[in-house]
Amino acid sequence: VRVAVLGASGYIGLELVRILLRHPRFELAVVTSEQRAGVRVGEAFPALRGLTDLVFESSAGAAKLGGRAELAFVALPHEISAPRVRDLRKAGLRVLDLSGDFRLRDPAAYARWYGEHHAPELLGEAVYGLPELGREAIPEAQLVAVPGCYPTSALLPLAPFLRAGLVAPSPVIVDSKSGVSGAGRKLDETYLFAELDASVHAYNVGGVHRHVPELEQVASGLAGEPVRVTFVPHLLPIRRGIATSVYAQPRRPLASEEARRVLAEAYAREPFVRVLPAGATPRISSVRGSNFCDVGALVDERTGALVLLSAIDNLVKGGSGQAVQCANLLAGFEETAGLLEAPFLP
Amino acid sequence: VRVAVLGASGYIGLELVRILLRHPRFELAVVTSEQRAGVRVGEAFPALRGLTDLVFESSAGAAKLGGRAELAFVALPHEISAPRVRDLRKAGLRVLDLSGDFRLRDPAAYARWYGEHHAPELLGEAVYGLPELGREAIPEAQLVAVPGCYPTSALLPLAPFLRAGLVAPSPVIVDSKSGVSGAGRKLDETYLFAELDASVHAYNVGGVHRHVPELEQVASGLAGEPVRVTFVPHLLPIRRGIATSVYAQPRRPLASEEARRVLAEAYAREPFVRVLPAGATPRISSVRGSNFCDVGALVDERTGALVLLSAIDNLVKGGSGQAVQCANLLAGFEETAGLLEAPFLP
Amino acid sequence: VRVAVLGASGYIGLELVRILLRHPRFELAVVTSEQRAGVRVGEAFPALRGLTDLVFESSAGAAKLGGRAELAFVALPHEISAPRVRDLRKAGLRVLDLSGDFRLRDPAAYARWYGEHHAPELLGEAVYGLPELGREAIPEAQLVAVPGCYPTSALLPLAPFLRAGLVAPSPVIVDSKSGVSGAGRKLDETYLFAELDASVHAYNVGGVHRHVPELEQVASGLAGEPVRVTFVPHLLPIRRGIATSVYAQPRRPLASEEARRVLAEAYAREPFVRVLPAGATPRISSVRGSNFCDVGALVDERTGALVLLSAIDNLVKGGSGQAVQCANLLAGFEETAGLLEAPFLP
Amino acid sequence: VRVAVLGASGYIGLELVRILLRHPRFELAVVTSEQRAGVRVGEAFPALRGLTDLVFESSAGAAKLGGRAELAFVALPHEISAPRVRDLRKAGLRVLDLSGDFRLRDPAAYARWYGEHHAPELLGEAVYGLPELGREAIPEAQLVAVPGCYPTSALLPLAPFLRAGLVAPSPVIVDSKSGVSGAGRKLDETYLFAELDASVHAYNVGGVHRHVPELEQVASGLAGEPVRVTFVPHLLPIRRGIATSVYAQPRRPLASEEARRVLAEAYAREPFVRVLPAGATPRISSVRGSNFCDVGALVDERTGALVLLSAIDNLVKGGSGQAVQCANLLAGFEETAGLLEAPFLP
Repeated sequence: VRVAVLGASGYIGLELVRILLRHPRFELAVVTSEQRAGVRVGEAFPALRGLTDLVFESSAGAAKLGGRAELAFVALPHEISAPRVRDLRKAGLRVLDLSGDFRLRDPAAYARWYGEHHAPELLGEAVYGLPELGREAIPEAQLVAVPGCYPTSALLPLAPFLRAGLVAPSPVIVDSKSGVSGAGRKLDETYLFAELDASVHAYNVGGVHRHVPELEQVASGLAGEPVRVTFVPHLLPIRRGIATSVYAQPRRPLASEEARRVLAEAYAREPFVRVLPAGATPRISSVRGSNFCDVGALVDERTGALVLLSAIDNLVKGGSGQAVQCANLLAGFEETAGLLEAPFLP
Repeated sequence: VRVAVLGASGYIGLELVRILLRHPRFELAVVTSEQRAGVRVGEAFPALRGLTDLVFESSAGAAKLGGRAELAFVALPHEISAPRVRDLRKAGLRVLDLSGDFRLRDPAAYARWYGEHHAPELLGEAVYGLPELGREAIPEAQLVAVPGCYPTSALLPLAPFLRAGLVAPSPVIVDSKSGVSGAGRKLDETYLFAELDASVHAYNVGGVHRHVPELEQVASGLAGEPVRVTFVPHLLPIRRGIATSVYAQPRRPLASEEARRVLAEAYAREPFVRVLPAGATPRISSVRGSNFCDVGALVDERTGALVLLSAIDNLVKGGSGQAVQCANLLAGFEETAGLLEAPFLP
Repeated sequence: VRVAVLGASGYIGLELVRILLRHPRFELAVVTSEQRAGVRVGEAFPALRGLTDLVFESSAGAAKLGGRAELAFVALPHEISAPRVRDLRKAGLRVLDLSGDFRLRDPAAYARWYGEHHAPELLGEAVYGLPELGREAIPEAQLVAVPGCYPTSALLPLAPFLRAGLVAPSPVIVDSKSGVSGAGRKLDETYLFAELDASVHAYNVGGVHRHVPELEQVASGLAGEPVRVTFVPHLLPIRRGIATSVYAQPRRPLASEEARRVLAEAYAREPFVRVLPAGATPRISSVRGSNFCDVGALVDERTGALVLLSAIDNLVKGGSGQAVQCANLLAGFEETAGLLEAPFLP
Repeated sequence: VRVAVLGASGYIGLELVRILLRHPRFELAVVTSEQRAGVRVGEAFPALRGLTDLVFESSAGAAKLGGRAELAFVALPHEISAPRVRDLRKAGLRVLDLSGDFRLRDPAAYARWYGEHHAPELLGEAVYGLPELGREAIPEAQLVAVPGCYPTSALLPLAPFLRAGLVAPSPVIVDSKSGVSGAGRKLDETYLFAELDASVHAYNVGGVHRHVPELEQVASGLAGEPVRVTFVPHLLPIRRGIATSVYAQPRRPLASEEARRVLAEAYAREPFVRVLPAGATPRISSVRGSNFCDVGALVDERTGALVLLSAIDNLVKGGSGQAVQCANLLAGFEETAGLLEAPFLP
């Protein structure tokens, strides 16, 4: 199955290239990049010399991809993504969109958090692509909205508790710490090495991050009642990885052992979610470069609060890996195809 | 005023040495280190060559310090600290203890969290040394219990709200991220560069960290009612610095503006607590190497939760700087003497 | 083909496991670790949970591996390695040894640099496993001495010039900078995060590093005359990667263009050596996690000196990847099997 | 003595501010920044809140500084610096220029390496400000050219050998590794955290770095004959610090012990140059944040090459600290005033 990656020169796009080059069933046929159109991949990114002969194309020609690929991964910024997705759909390609353009079901919510939607007619056909929380609709989907990195890291540990009605819908606190690749290759002083190194700070505090409505939409759907989340993301001086801590209030007293059992049962058959035993906590170093999401749970006996912990690689399970996982389902391949690489250790 | 530093070769001890060498009024007269006894400071730590002729002594001779120093900073591990503090007190020195041995007022609490206390008779005279939350008793104190790094980072932003009864005593969530120097120079695989670099993980989760009872003791005192805290510390791949996020529930709806005003009024005359304006969040890079604690506040309008943020250098305001700040009070010096260094930037 | 990894819990060993788990032809059948014998791999290293059911065994039983594997990778410390290699050879396995035990051909040199050799009778059959400098003997080898990481990084750029007699045999300066995984998981204060982070220093200066005789043995063989190398390794605050600069004096005036052509011709058909064009310099970030060695050359026009630059991942092309490359040759597989992964970017 | 800092918002400028704020004799009276003119220092750099009430001014008004400061530090980019220096000189201020504009004595050399000089009439009065290699002319100077960071790191270990004629003038190899603050706060993809972290690469290879003519000018002056240097700088994933290795050929056989004695004698009375004993190598962590230059020497017994090692903080001894050291001489203060801070450890 031939695939295209639109926006292949960003960090998410490059990780898609990295995964697809080793994938046993997908053939990477087209890569696009506005800034680097006409340049060989290996010339633009010396790391990739010798691994592919592809040349970056402009993504404007998306409509013409009909004959050259069956699937397209779109790793463009939101707002820019939607019109391209429309072109691709018209050209008959099935699409995995990694932007925020098709994650919110409610057009009014999109308008509030992002602005005007440029392909609202496609919102109806978009399927949310978090297989562990619902993979039924994915194989037949024409358009998959690949989840945001933060929602993935918070929803996987939290979902089983919301579904079982074990925690109150409020207050739910999500304190996330992310590596800088999540912000893309942004030319801003904030992201300079000398500014970021050896420092940490919270940003987009106060419920203004665009992952908030996505998180709440999915969480509320799982809980069957409105869930409101206080979300505080932090920037870490590392390239990749997210560590998330979720704090929720159990509806009835819960023991740590029971909390871990809830997770263990929910994910017993999931290849990419690993439930850690008592005493272990998820570490970014254990998932770096892999599609795993490590999760842990415990109850603070003194306060009764449920503490959920997770770690993912934001570029893999938080983006490109998850997209390929969905694409495997779309294409009828083994869901794990090309994704069972061991983490990058040390 | 001549001072001694017991346990001067650990990270906290070395930072004391660094501050005291530049202090305009204190004269560093004695440094001790069991492992390095008999070795010149500059030989043991090439960074300090040419800055002092002091030779590390064994701390066993503490009782004999009577004639050689008036003040002693004790940066020894808990349990080992208490007997030395007793010796020093007997020798007539006033003591600033940086271990956990004199922070808890209740001997039973100490027993529960640390074990048997080796100088329980001194618990009564120990004064908790967080000047911004109560400096009255410090100038006359014979023994100051210098606060833990995490409690300092959480209490400074939280205190004004507890005092004013603006937040509920539960749930209070404290999610802290600390650089590795907080763990000392521990020879454990966890702290090897190749293991820690580019990773983050939570540790001592579930209310088992020894800073929990300290945090709650002070918080409860401020609130006038029992406060229970869910505390989750994380280890960061940086040498110094703590970023803490505190989540609390206001007792009545609170606006972000008002929350910031609460902080601004509380710390208007404090030289070391800097209240950030709207839109700014505390950064470790802004306090690195300094005795500042930067704090910020806001209310998540969607959930009503109060979010408090802080950043300190764990070795300075979270330890050695705070100890010197207290020592300045003890000695009758300007409280800021030797402590108004600009942060290490970049 | 079933393979065993002895010493699988060290950094080099874990990287072998990482590569072999994804290898299309080798089946990882046995892993050993003295410290972790009896423990599941995924229990000892949470990063590997869910990827293998193997349990670490003691390596003492090496002699019994006859029936369980055809090939063995030995990633044990030097001196400990040799007796195990002897056992494995007796049991009929072909061996790839990653220690320094079989790299020096001259037993007297071994004695001088390492000490008494524990299996001197095998020195004769050992083949040096740097395929790009001579792969003829490898396919039939029973014992391959996998090169050291530093020699690999210096010899690949230097070899074509030595072979062609283009540079003088002295002075040759090799200034290398290595990430800390090269030292293994050593419990020593030097390797603590707080000590190493944000610092760099030279070590083993003065021709005392054990890679010196290896470097000179191979370099002299290539040059057909004795080559003496001034080698200065530096420790970098990164986990993986070596950047090496080699300074040599051309025997006749040489232009940068010509120097690059020498490299380009030498490695035109090598899949793992990438010769960079004018203006580009090798970067560790371009080879991280991959088996590539990027090389560049230029002549300082003002001084006439030849400057050669290279970058490798010390755990891959500098160890485990190179070992698997040799093993592919031994087993008659495609030399690149399992090794054409894209670098870890960003 | 009142001082001004022109270009105070760059990394070198901020370090000047940091040092001058604590200086016992200088009073920081004026700071300029084109980008941040009109903004309070503490607003532009939250790290400096509470430490100064100064407001950044435009540097265009330099000519009017006559009445407001006696000394000016100019930390502007080369070419932009020269006209400002002229204005300041006309206004009667003595100037310490940290750009490259006044380091080369020969206008033709400046033209070749930088371009047209904008204040050539001042070249004659400029004094090179490396006190350890010649402080006689500094106290009376009206204009001091503060040396580049790389030349400082290479010249201090090398100078005594050149002066004594102990090494050949060629080949001299200088392999330097620098933290990124040396490049300033440059908005370029190269300096983004995600690009630089965990990587190292050489840049400006082939004798094209502008510090080459400076290095050779001073080295040749010391040697009394033309010295040609092959200089290769590398970029490190750290914020501050330079580690330099110099390789030279002794004119007669030299023992390591003797080499160290040469250094020890040359710097016996220098407060900022620390000669390390046998077995120790300079570390960036030992000089971080300080004005020290640590140096070491040894001879590779096998090759006879002299290996010189050094470490400095590029922003302090490699820039701002050195400038203040010179300014102390200009002002008739103790040369070490404000500069004997202990390194930032850990």
